[in-house]
Amino acid sequence: MKSDSVAMTSLAGERKQGTVGIFGTGDFGRSLGLRLLQAGYEVVFGSRDPKNSALVAKGSKVMTHTEAAQMAQVIFIAVQRDYYDFLTSLTPALEGKVLVDISNNLKRGQFPQSNAEYLSSLVPGASVVKGFNTVSAWALQSGALDASRQVLVCGDDPKAKQAVVDIAHSLGLSAQDRGSLGAAGELEDIPLQLFPNWRLPLLIATGLTAFFFFYLLIRDVFYSYVVDGKDRSFRIMISLANKVFPIVSLTMLALCYLPSVLAAILQLYNGTKYKRFPDWLDRWMLCRKQLGLVALALAFLHVIYTLVIPIRYYVKYKIAASTISQSKDNVTKPFDNTMAWREDSYYSLGILGFGLYVLLGITSLPSVSNALNWREFRFVQSKLGHVTLLFCTAHALLYGWDKFLRPYKWCMPPGYMLSLVVPCVVLVSKLILIMPCVDCAITRIRQGWERPTKGTALSKGTTQQRLMA
Amino acid sequence: MKSDSVAMTSLAGERKQGTVGIFGTGDFGRSLGLRLLQAGYEVVFGSRDPKNSALVAKGSKVMTHTEAAQMAQVIFIAVQRDYYDFLTSLTPALEGKVLVDISNNLKRGQFPQSNAEYLSSLVPGASVVKGFNTVSAWALQSGALDASRQVLVCGDDPKAKQAVVDIAHSLGLSAQDRGSLGAAGELEDIPLQLFPNWRLPLLIATGLTAFFFFYLLIRDVFYSYVVDGKDRSFRIMISLANKVFPIVSLTMLALCYLPSVLAAILQLYNGTKYKRFPDWLDRWMLCRKQLGLVALALAFLHVIYTLVIPIRYYVKYKIAASTISQSKDNVTKPFDNTMAWREDSYYSLGILGFGLYVLLGITSLPSVSNALNWREFRFVQSKLGHVTLLFCTAHALLYGWDKFLRPYKWCMPPGYMLSLVVPCVVLVSKLILIMPCVDCAITRIRQGWERPTKGTALSKGTTQQRLMA
Amino acid sequence: MKSDSVAMTSLAGERKQGTVGIFGTGDFGRSLGLRLLQAGYEVVFGSRDPKNSALVAKGSKVMTHTEAAQMAQVIFIAVQRDYYDFLTSLTPALEGKVLVDISNNLKRGQFPQSNAEYLSSLVPGASVVKGFNTVSAWALQSGALDASRQVLVCGDDPKAKQAVVDIAHSLGLSAQDRGSLGAAGELEDIPLQLFPNWRLPLLIATGLTAFFFFYLLIRDVFYSYVVDGKDRSFRIMISLANKVFPIVSLTMLALCYLPSVLAAILQLYNGTKYKRFPDWLDRWMLCRKQLGLVALALAFLHVIYTLVIPIRYYVKYKIAASTISQSKDNVTKPFDNTMAWREDSYYSLGILGFGLYVLLGITSLPSVSNALNWREFRFVQSKLGHVTLLFCTAHALLYGWDKFLRPYKWCMPPGYMLSLVVPCVVLVSKLILIMPCVDCAITRIRQGWERPTKGTALSKGTTQQRLMA
Repeated sequence: MKSDSVAMTSLAGERKQGTVGIFGTGDFGRSLGLRLLQAGYEVVFGSRDPKNSALVAKGSKVMTHTEAAQMAQVIFIAVQRDYYDFLTSLTPALEGKVLVDISNNLKRGQFPQSNAEYLSSLVPGASVVKGFNTVSAWALQSGALDASRQVLVCGDDPKAKQAVVDIAHSLGLSAQDRGSLGAAGELEDIPLQLFPNWRLPLLIATGLTAFFFFYLLIRDVFYSYVVDGKDRSFRIMISLANKVFPIVSLTMLALCYLPSVLAAILQLYNGTKYKRFPDWLDRWMLCRKQLGLVALALAFLHVIYTLVIPIRYYVKYKIAASTISQSKDNVTKPFDNTMAWREDSYYSLGILGFGLYVLLGITSLPSVSNALNWREFRFVQSKLGHVTLLFCTAHALLYGWDKFLRPYKWCMPPGYMLSLVVPCVVLVSKLILIMPCVDCAITRIRQGWERPTKGTALSKGTTQQRLMA
Repeated sequence: MKSDSVAMTSLAGERKQGTVGIFGTGDFGRSLGLRLLQAGYEVVFGSRDPKNSALVAKGSKVMTHTEAAQMAQVIFIAVQRDYYDFLTSLTPALEGKVLVDISNNLKRGQFPQSNAEYLSSLVPGASVVKGFNTVSAWALQSGALDASRQVLVCGDDPKAKQAVVDIAHSLGLSAQDRGSLGAAGELEDIPLQLFPNWRLPLLIATGLTAFFFFYLLIRDVFYSYVVDGKDRSFRIMISLANKVFPIVSLTMLALCYLPSVLAAILQLYNGTKYKRFPDWLDRWMLCRKQLGLVALALAFLHVIYTLVIPIRYYVKYKIAASTISQSKDNVTKPFDNTMAWREDSYYSLGILGFGLYVLLGITSLPSVSNALNWREFRFVQSKLGHVTLLFCTAHALLYGWDKFLRPYKWCMPPGYMLSLVVPCVVLVSKLILIMPCVDCAITRIRQGWERPTKGTALSKGTTQQRLMA
Repeated sequence: MKSDSVAMTSLAGERKQGTVGIFGTGDFGRSLGLRLLQAGYEVVFGSRDPKNSALVAKGSKVMTHTEAAQMAQVIFIAVQRDYYDFLTSLTPALEGKVLVDISNNLKRGQFPQSNAEYLSSLVPGASVVKGFNTVSAWALQSGALDASRQVLVCGDDPKAKQAVVDIAHSLGLSAQDRGSLGAAGELEDIPLQLFPNWRLPLLIATGLTAFFFFYLLIRDVFYSYVVDGKDRSFRIMISLANKVFPIVSLTMLALCYLPSVLAAILQLYNGTKYKRFPDWLDRWMLCRKQLGLVALALAFLHVIYTLVIPIRYYVKYKIAASTISQSKDNVTKPFDNTMAWREDSYYSLGILGFGLYVLLGITSLPSVSNALNWREFRFVQSKLGHVTLLFCTAHALLYGWDKFLRPYKWCMPPGYMLSLVVPCVVLVSKLILIMPCVDCAITRIRQGWERPTKGTALSKGTTQQRLMA
């Protein structure tokens, strides 16, 4: 909600000039008109049928396209691309005007030429600016509280762009210049994106979930059906889900911290930080936040699935049956102190790990992470992150406890064992990396030191120059 | 925390000019003075008793009002409206100055004339700007991290407004121009607002909660007291609450998605999108977010109320009693596989529904929704929202299961049945609306197509013109 | 993500001028170069070894330092302070240029002179601007979504600063002027801060947790070992933790509301609001938010620790043992209606209190609190806060119920009693403060009234003047 001083001056100017034009009285045109009126602009709608003005906001005028074009310096084209050709007939009236192309397409690459460039070719005498296409009519109407308030603009005429940026600012929107009109195609693609950073993490989560689901389905349901002849299919809904979710969650949490371990190893191996990481590692590092958040969502489900256990029919039935049989047999099992310690430690570690996990999640909310400095952000995401991983791994290890040595069913190790592979690799590697000698070497490399390549004996002076290079 | 380049230049200018004046050494005056000093301004306080300067920040000067007025171009009036009349005596000294009215009233419409207009009438030679009244002394003091950092300004003199906007920017606050001084009354009302968008949703929630509470009180407590003579009043605290909350939550979640269904039906009926929705529907659509968040809060309570069940005395007592009686009677109930399936599915659907629900809630946090583009926001709030509604409705249906056919107590159907009415209406309508033929018609209408009104045979060309109108 | 209109114009200017220079091809230099390229700048890297250009972004040029200095008006010095002295040899080429010092130190006060001032002394002919040191290479690379996007700049030459601010804006970062180059030392310390506001609250939480842990360890574990000879050490993991967390949480929640009570009492005692609070009270008031959030984290752990109770081995064992013994003895305990009421009320109050608590936590997220006006913020944090405290205190009181009169073990009252001390003090004080007569006096003082000091009989006129002073 900015409107900087320059916007204000030119806004005052606009007010004297009078008007902003809008061609088209659709949703977006009407919402924009209303908002412009509220911000103090005069608004004229260009319409084929100026009498049909029932829907536009009170205070705005509806006239023919030609009349509207004459009254306003900046004109928003709130019409679909298919109908742009009517503008050719208005060419004389639009000479020297700023036309704002706000259109979006239905899918990527629908047209070879971007809408804004097409518009520019139709009305060569006007300055076309692409902008406002990332803002929804809804955001304009509801006071810009939902969805993005950022207006991205591009265009070839700096003054025309500035006029549009000024209008954006005076509407309480923020604006960013994205270069020449050649970037219009890119801007038109933005509203068509659907969580591009989340694809890989969600794909990994789906893949792992599917794999472990079928793995455990075979191990827990099919096995007991084939070997014991018991129908345990009801386990799918909760018991199985509550195994799959934590396994995938722990693995994904570890996958968040694996790339930085790999990066450190690569840097140690290369003896320099001035060598680019392989592409896949770069991509992996850029989606760590999303990986972590998906893992947190699964951990959240695991927590509720676990807490729901004692109200399940199956569990209540089993406990009653066991109590009744003990009561009948007149044999009371002795209290097992080790068991009590182990179970409580196991739960306690899980709870603390989950608490830290939620903290990590909260810290990655944009407004929170924005309030942290770089050191604080790193402290939370790296130090606390590794502690979280440690707690969750210990939680899984204690869950296993003495089950590690039990014979496998059909040569399939239990799920929790598989879930421990990646976390243990990460934790052990990290442990090695933070040992004083190794840590020292990495710090030196990260501060710019390079291992002299074979056969080259660099003098100290040369190394120093190199660091500045 | 912006301070754009222009602000910087004029800030540098201000520094040469020297000073900003503040009349009044109350909380706000002092906090503002400190903040201005930190931003590099010279600060002079105008005071009746310049020696009484113990409390103002170090580095600022305290002098008489006249002296202060002479030294500063911009003067903040941090004095209550009741004491404005002393300014009349300073008229000559204030000639041509910018006076910033930062005052607020205790209640709406306390005075017929806004404070800023009253100030302007007292000192006609000065340019009055209304501003900073929405910022708290606390926000200024604590580094603007809590509550709003947005400064809204209005005034008749663009240059005076710009000077105030510059100061706001240099203090790390954002600013928005709200027009002429006539808008001052509106700005003075803003700090008196108390969640205006939340009223309707909270009213609905309270109404539904009260209704279902008494409905279930009669059904679950009074009925068993009258018919069975049992005192079940202890159920009020948890059992009853845990029925009321999910019922209201599910109904309200459905109420979030009902208006868009109604809108689609209206558009289909009208055969055009160029007809305004009735006012109540517009209002309803604008508070969907709040409806959903209240419903989420109730769902959250429902989850904890449910998870707390097994540690309740009543539940533990009942389980022990049932186990003991089975043990005595020597009859073991057989394990019911269907029951296990049904209960587990019921819990699982509820958990997944709640997980999605929390996701919807997180996505409506301003900083998160701001980072989404329009398509992503719609995907989450519409697609995921309907899936959430589907899961939660299925959860309630499975909870009912075979109880649907049981006889009613006192002709009162159980609560969960009532909670299913609105969700089922929404889901069935939605199902009809996304059927290819209907969906196709709606999409056409939303793209601008209009059903030709009777008797008018529009040529294709005319329709096309119409779309652009 | 702002780039205001001025930035845009000068950006267009920059484009004609051609280039921004970067000395150094380390992480930060390369990330910055890439981002500048994306924003439409020409980028030249100054390097000792221009052929070693494998790593810089495509489109940028690598040349010798002298060549680069000649081509660019603004040059970022992405080199560590230790290597600054090579710049002395470039003095002629750097005459009149803007040098941006982006360096950070490894610890506070590492050097007596700030890096930027040192740079300025080395190249006196250039205008040095400190800036961009609070932004991480990571933030630049990943699109500025994580960690802070705020660029703080300081410098002695306003035009040079403006040029840097313009670049920041065009990169989608926000900028704030922090005064002359003398402030550079302060700016260099910012990235070294680690949660300064959280220290005191975390210290309090740690202290209280340690105290109550050992207190309860003696009372619950040592006592039963010494007196009864039973090993109850397994209780440490959950039972003990689940006593310590709520006790500390409730005490800390009360500590959030104690300072405002103390402040009101002080104001009443002083008879004026124009007397500064003692320093410790000011500091305490400024960390209330953090106190509350730490308390919320502990309450969150308490909730999960409580919900996990029924799946603990110890609890299941005890329940089974009790059921079996009842079954054997053939004695069924009668259902205790009061007990059911009390337990359910106790849980219900805790759940509602926790719900409100979470609401308070959500409201203190920067983006949420930013969207509230002052009155709304105060309503939530003060009114709802006190209701939360009331619910949680009632929850603890009901937990105690009839245990209050039981004999103490080793003269140590149970933990929950200790946890009630501060909350009860706060609630009773608050109750007294909101009684009409007291409330009236405080309101008068807060509106500016002062109790006439002894011996001074102020006329009404004088008081009025005083208020304005």
